Amino acid sequence: MLGRTYEAEVCSAARTLELVGERWSLLILRDALYRGTTRFADFQRDLGLASNILAKRLEGFVAAGLMEQRRYSERPEHHEYLLTDKGRELQAVIIALTTWGDRWAAPKGPPILYEHAGCGGAIHTHLRCSTCGDVEADAAVGARRGPGMPS
Amino acid sequence: MLGRTYEAEVCSAARTLELVGERWSLLILRDALYRGTTRFADFQRDLGLASNILAKRLEGFVAAGLMEQRRYSERPEHHEYLLTDKGRELQAVIIALTTWGDRWAAPKGPPILYEHAGCGGAIHTHLRCSTCGDVEADAAVGARRGPGMPS
Repeated sequence: MLGRTYEAEVCSAARTLELVGERWSLLILRDALYRGTTRFADFQRDLGLASNILAKRLEGFVAAGLMEQRRYSERPEHHEYLLTDKGRELQAVIIALTTWGDRWAAPKGPPILYEHAGCGGAIHTHLRCSTCGDVEADAAVGARRGPGMPS
Repeated sequence: MLGRTYEAEVCSAARTLELVGERWSLLILRDALYRGTTRFADFQRDLGLASNILAKRLEGFVAAGLMEQRRYSERPEHHEYLLTDKGRELQAVIIALTTWGDRWAAPKGPPILYEHAGCGGAIHTHLRCSTCGDVEADAAVGARRGPGMPS
């Protein structure tokens, strides 16, 4: 059990949510990952969100290192937004959200199936214990202070 | 790749975020899971959030079946909030956020270590392919329509 000194801000889950916690953020990343979307106009058309919000999210992703901006046209000047490795690995979060939602919030079955590009196998997230191997999602897990927690 | 008809609302990741996407929601669940917090006053003291927001979140969790309300005192009447299995399994989402954040947003090392209650082994999330077994977080993954997607 964590002690009373535990600060909400010093938590990797909270830090990650600060980067991707807004709903549009996740949907933009999902489109980048699974539709291959890279261009401002394509994100906007697919998601139907206001251009000022989209611009703010994409700028935030670039500033956070989740995407890189690359110019693909000089006149007129246009840029595209490409996922970095840091951004791409957020798919583990999207798929964890999906795994839970498919189990508990999808009465008609999964709306989207994720599959491994190489073989077509189904992709899900799992919890793993370094000693026991795979454990169930409701396994008893405890939390303790790590090296990154200020003393 | 998903088609143009893909609706943002028919996505298990988006549905899950609707339930737990607000920052306080995740922190409330984290405290319930890893500090064993059950009482209104304890959540409020630990997290320091406004009581009207806390009340709204807890009501929402009960309505969504993530928590159950149980009376522990008759006079005065007080309730506690206990995680259901549906709520408890959200730890896979919290740990996926943490696994990413520890890797990409924790320069001094993980602030919190999750460990298996039975053996003390380190707990992380992994992506798994039903054919290949474990795959890396940056594995090439595709998305296609599942049975729960309206035609």
